[in-house]
Amino acid sequence: MMKTLFTEAVVISMEDGARPIQNGNLAIEDGIITYVGSALSLEEHDQYDEIVSCKGKAILPGFVNTHGHLAMTLLRGYADDLPLQQWLENEIWPMEGKMNAEHVSAGAHLAALEMIQGGTTTFLDMYDNMDAVANVVEHSGLRARLTRGCIGFGDDALRKSKLEEAASFAKRWNGAADGRITTMLAPHSPYTCGPDFIRQFVEKATELGLPIHTHMSETKAEVELNVREYGARPVEHLDKLGFFDIPSLVAHAVHLTEEEIALLAKKNVKIAHNPGSNLKLGSGIAPISQMIAHGMRPSLATDGAASNNNLDLLEEIQLAALIHKGHLQDPLAVPAKTALAMGTVYGAEALFLEKEIGTLEIGKQADFITLDLTQAHMQPQTDVVSHIVYSATRSDVQDVYVQGKPLMKNREMLTIDSEKVIFEANQAFENLRG
Amino acid sequence: MMKTLFTEAVVISMEDGARPIQNGNLAIEDGIITYVGSALSLEEHDQYDEIVSCKGKAILPGFVNTHGHLAMTLLRGYADDLPLQQWLENEIWPMEGKMNAEHVSAGAHLAALEMIQGGTTTFLDMYDNMDAVANVVEHSGLRARLTRGCIGFGDDALRKSKLEEAASFAKRWNGAADGRITTMLAPHSPYTCGPDFIRQFVEKATELGLPIHTHMSETKAEVELNVREYGARPVEHLDKLGFFDIPSLVAHAVHLTEEEIALLAKKNVKIAHNPGSNLKLGSGIAPISQMIAHGMRPSLATDGAASNNNLDLLEEIQLAALIHKGHLQDPLAVPAKTALAMGTVYGAEALFLEKEIGTLEIGKQADFITLDLTQAHMQPQTDVVSHIVYSATRSDVQDVYVQGKPLMKNREMLTIDSEKVIFEANQAFENLRG
Ligand SMILES: [Zn+2]
Ligand SMILES: [Zn+2]
Repeated sequence: MMKTLFTEAVVISMEDGARPIQNGNLAIEDGIITYVGSALSLEEHDQYDEIVSCKGKAILPGFVNTHGHLAMTLLRGYADDLPLQQWLENEIWPMEGKMNAEHVSAGAHLAALEMIQGGTTTFLDMYDNMDAVANVVEHSGLRARLTRGCIGFGDDALRKSKLEEAASFAKRWNGAADGRITTMLAPHSPYTCGPDFIRQFVEKATELGLPIHTHMSETKAEVELNVREYGARPVEHLDKLGFFDIPSLVAHAVHLTEEEIALLAKKNVKIAHNPGSNLKLGSGIAPISQMIAHGMRPSLATDGAASNNNLDLLEEIQLAALIHKGHLQDPLAVPAKTALAMGTVYGAEALFLEKEIGTLEIGKQADFITLDLTQAHMQPQTDVVSHIVYSATRSDVQDVYVQGKPLMKNREMLTIDSEKVIFEANQAFENLRG
Repeated sequence: MMKTLFTEAVVISMEDGARPIQNGNLAIEDGIITYVGSALSLEEHDQYDEIVSCKGKAILPGFVNTHGHLAMTLLRGYADDLPLQQWLENEIWPMEGKMNAEHVSAGAHLAALEMIQGGTTTFLDMYDNMDAVANVVEHSGLRARLTRGCIGFGDDALRKSKLEEAASFAKRWNGAADGRITTMLAPHSPYTCGPDFIRQFVEKATELGLPIHTHMSETKAEVELNVREYGARPVEHLDKLGFFDIPSLVAHAVHLTEEEIALLAKKNVKIAHNPGSNLKLGSGIAPISQMIAHGMRPSLATDGAASNNNLDLLEEIQLAALIHKGHLQDPLAVPAKTALAMGTVYGAEALFLEKEIGTLEIGKQADFITLDLTQAHMQPQTDVVSHIVYSATRSDVQDVYVQGKPLMKNREMLTIDSEKVIFEANQAFENLRG
């Protein structure tokens, strides 16, 4: 078993209360972290098969992207700056309706490439043709929580077959790829899935012991629609259906009352905050400060590339650190440290993977990235966490490891053929556009 | 005289209404643009001394950063996430009080390096020890509108000497460095300069035929203070002092009434919108959509790196395209095209340099940049303006030209020694911190 020691780095473990370790070391063995701390002596170096100098670099947990639709990278920039309904109904849905497993594979490859280049090591994906996505996870080396997202239109038979397909996918892939793939269930949203259908998902998730995920309270219109249709806002509605009685993660949660936040906090519901997508679609600004005040630990996500338009989790971290300060006119809202936690350890918690990933701790999976600290925009060398959150850019990510295996080294891709992936993504898009 | 033709690019001229030119050409001669359009024939190529292929790249006007304090890069990350007054009074001002010309030179070098790497070709700087900044502009090859920013504390004699120093700097450097340096006058703000002092600036600017600049209505507290002290909000106050009767540019303009926007529009006052800084300091979100509805063409700026924390104008473009949509819950607010105009042509107008720069047009100065369109996050090749605004990152900037002279080629710095500049900036910071 190969033992590797990474030396001379600023190590940011993201453990609660821990400070960056100057001239720190990280050791890994067989995909597991075996040491995190100050520099080991040269004699101790002898125990290692490989010593990797990370001089001028920070080492931190890989970013965790807790909500997205990988295949939608194919629709990046396809129809921007339109009113939401026109964008969805006239542009996005017709294109998505044409997507088959090959399109999804092409889009997921492009997304995987982009995510690795930006330092994301774990992501959630909710889409159709999920076997294609699982295959991309398997050979790209990424880690993912995957779910077949289901829309409840059509008749009972169609809904039943979708739920069965979702459950079958979830059973087939949970624990696959050396444990890098886990699964969950996901009715798309309260406005596309009736109460009975959602209840069936809750029952199935309970039966399978899997967490559950959905879109919730993304827009004001959607909340109002829910009240008109079901006499309750989405939080109360989902609560009545038992959604929050099992491990659950909701994406967006933009339009919430104080009481709803209190309920979500009490039920330990996980949040995927999508600042870029919520801004671009004009959905609004989620009450993240208030959630934090209630003891919640919201995570970060990009949503699909059609509404973002990239899969850059560092940009979401930066947006999370900036927009709530401006929106609330409070420079103390979402400090840099909190924003970085949202993109790492809170993300691991949101995907129910906090025992495996999210911090650099002995015994956890060796999922980590390095960031170049030597560039002009990272000077002078003052507060490294502040620099990463407010100044860095995705191209500062140098190395990406998952389960101790390098996926990118000094920005060279090791598991994905970039040229081929980019070529095929463009082909798939042309094919879709017809 | 050297004639150079740039070929095979997507040319984005930023002229009102112009669309990106696929397989476009740009020709320059003696620092001036001589052709912009579709591909010339191979015979026409013979007229050129040099043909530069820009395959896979976009060519667009360099970014214009219309408000900043270069030397504050030395304070990047020095004291983040503090309440505004504590940050300013306990942290920033004491450090600034110690800054001499050498510190300013070190900070301005670091800023120039960072701005070139991010595609900024023209910037405004308002600070002290401006000769040091002018020297950096001269040998870095950048273009700048420079001004000695004056705070009106102290007695009349001190104020008089400051105004004289500011005027003398402005006269000495206006038109220097082959015209790349222009100047203006700048009382720091209505809350740090009394009415008489501001009026003296207006008179001096009128006498010298130079534009005038100040910070205005950045925070709610500052507006309220102005009302208490002078019985008028900052816009009315400055208007009474004649500030808007000469070419004027105000930074921030976050807290404005509808009537104030109408007045600023009527008087053709230029706006430097600083989204990143306004968010980070919790100042608020400027009414950019409303300004645009009044026919204004607001520009973009980073402000100093201590409150941003970088000098990345592309990030400001992206923030401008995102935050107003989210804040107003309107996906049509500040479309991508408008955001890119704010960072280029509107910036040129804000600095009163629209005859020289801001668009790619025959006869204008050859200030332009190229952007890599081949990376994963820029696929599929759909809407290039959308990709630049919503998906690109500063490291996609490949080449930077000012007055036809390359400052960066394929990310290699040509006028600045990066290692030396970074070393000296860290030294200067350590020296300041003492
Ligand atoms: Zn989504
Ligand atoms: Zn300023």
